[in-house]
Amino acid sequence: MKLMILFGGASFEHEISIVSAITLKDKLEGFDLSFVFCDVDHRFYLIDASKMKAKTFSLGEFKKMPELHLENAAFIQKTMFSSVKHRSTVLNLIHGADGEDGTISSLLDFFSIRYIGPRIDASVFSYDKRYTKYLCNAKNIKTLDYEILSQSEHNNISIPYPVIIKPASLGSSIGVSIVKDESELDYALDVAFEFDKNVLIEPFINAVKEYNLAGFMLNGKIHFSIVEEPQKEEFLDFEKKYMDFSRSQSISGADISVALEAKLKSSFERIYTNLFEGALIRCDFFVINDEVYLNEINPIPGAMANYLFDDFKNAIESLSNSLPQTKRIKVNYDYIHSINQAKGK
Amino acid sequence: MKLMILFGGASFEHEISIVSAITLKDKLEGFDLSFVFCDVDHRFYLIDASKMKAKTFSLGEFKKMPELHLENAAFIQKTMFSSVKHRSTVLNLIHGADGEDGTISSLLDFFSIRYIGPRIDASVFSYDKRYTKYLCNAKNIKTLDYEILSQSEHNNISIPYPVIIKPASLGSSIGVSIVKDESELDYALDVAFEFDKNVLIEPFINAVKEYNLAGFMLNGKIHFSIVEEPQKEEFLDFEKKYMDFSRSQSISGADISVALEAKLKSSFERIYTNLFEGALIRCDFFVINDEVYLNEINPIPGAMANYLFDDFKNAIESLSNSLPQTKRIKVNYDYIHSINQAKGK
Repeated sequence: MKLMILFGGASFEHEISIVSAITLKDKLEGFDLSFVFCDVDHRFYLIDASKMKAKTFSLGEFKKMPELHLENAAFIQKTMFSSVKHRSTVLNLIHGADGEDGTISSLLDFFSIRYIGPRIDASVFSYDKRYTKYLCNAKNIKTLDYEILSQSEHNNISIPYPVIIKPASLGSSIGVSIVKDESELDYALDVAFEFDKNVLIEPFINAVKEYNLAGFMLNGKIHFSIVEEPQKEEFLDFEKKYMDFSRSQSISGADISVALEAKLKSSFERIYTNLFEGALIRCDFFVINDEVYLNEINPIPGAMANYLFDDFKNAIESLSNSLPQTKRIKVNYDYIHSINQAKGK
Repeated sequence: MKLMILFGGASFEHEISIVSAITLKDKLEGFDLSFVFCDVDHRFYLIDASKMKAKTFSLGEFKKMPELHLENAAFIQKTMFSSVKHRSTVLNLIHGADGEDGTISSLLDFFSIRYIGPRIDASVFSYDKRYTKYLCNAKNIKTLDYEILSQSEHNNISIPYPVIIKPASLGSSIGVSIVKDESELDYALDVAFEFDKNVLIEPFINAVKEYNLAGFMLNGKIHFSIVEEPQKEEFLDFEKKYMDFSRSQSISGADISVALEAKLKSSFERIYTNLFEGALIRCDFFVINDEVYLNEINPIPGAMANYLFDDFKNAIESLSNSLPQTKRIKVNYDYIHSINQAKGK
């Protein structure tokens, strides 16, 4: 199974993506993997598998490796007198900006490269937490109450304390704060506005039950991971959330009722269907009084949430064989001909 | 004023885009214009201004012109022994797929090229009529009732006849039908499903009042066009909608009350703000019992709705001087260093 792992990106989660890619090198052992790194200047480099180590990137050693350019249906490596085409299905593993905001999806679509990952619409609805609210509202999925502040209008807030403050468009808890009273508000807003022009404010519910569920669609049917009850902290910070990508023991599923599991799966399916086809995503839910609330959608979860799947290699292989087809539009110039006829030309 | 007109694209509106570009060549006389054509195979060609005629495209003559490649901050023209960089602000004039769905925006953003046109989020919310409904709902803008059919679930509809049937993601009235009773439904759905997997159904309101308003934002303030009452047909079909790009008489504004004009402008402003910055858009409204309903958003209107602006050249020039800045993300590898420290390396 041939697969090109695309990682890096000009994103606050750039380093997380590197760690994800290094993790997948182990987790997809036996695959015919190639690695393409997108640096912060949006140049692509072909990284030899033996160089898939953190210092290749942190020390800038990647710059000595072959540069690639996107052309029709391939990444092209130019050599002195000719060029080599690298053709393969891509696994988009760029977290945050570039990878999850629709940019990389657009590039791969434009250059007719097949890929595992969210398409452009799915990216926009999951990348910006405001738009996730719009989506849930349209699909009748409960979410917490919220308000939005934009940098220009820095108002008071109306949601009672404690609240949680999040930049509208980042994952990985970057820029997120819990604010217990008004005295802490300004500082938390300043932190969040460092990362985004728009900030989402939600009630903070102490000790709320959280469950994560990943899955992907094959031939119209969702294949689910186990339901995970994530390790409980006040909230998971940047490092804690990612230090466990490579855990090798499979985790046991959350101890929940059959009815609750069915509710979580039904919510996941409504979010996924007709939008996330082609992607393996993780939805993070809250459960309050037995009701399911969507917290957030991770359309490219860290290390592809490999630890939640019994047979992760099989999941990736079967998904790569079931990617959405792009319909090619034909152009026939009938309209221009009809204008010219109307003009008597 | 230097400007690169980007047009064509793999879109059902490919030909409309060519007509738009030819029209703008006249309407922006005096500008230092260059023309870049994107063909249906997603190759870029530099078209000499003297060749900006329909037959250059319909007869395939563009293929003899210099091919361009996107690289960092420029379109590159490779010559035998070197290359020429074409650097300019781009006017994205690709209608429909590619241009209005976020793909071209992503490409231009990725390669750090400044452009007039909708950014990626704005594209997704205006390109797919379902998502326009989500947006209006979130921004408290009225729209007509609707339902969605997807190709896989071809159900009966619950909205009373007559209804109007539209592919979810096309402009220019392509694939649109008015259905007066059930006997016409299946045929109209088949037509619409030719163009999109999802179809939007709305009540058809005979002789509804329609008003179009275009505008763009400069330094936080919207600059509006005149309000147009479009020529009334049952609905405007493909040809009628576009044959009038090049009309040279300026049209007079619609004869409406000051209060209604204010309502239209207020709706426009709520839709535009915090989403469409960088674009000149046209919103098409219905007015029913003095209430304003959004019909659709054209984020790249035909020939940029030049005929609605008193001083179109000035509009384009001032917009191009007020484009959103993209904030460059810096990466410092602190996280990787901290992991390595934790491991004692």
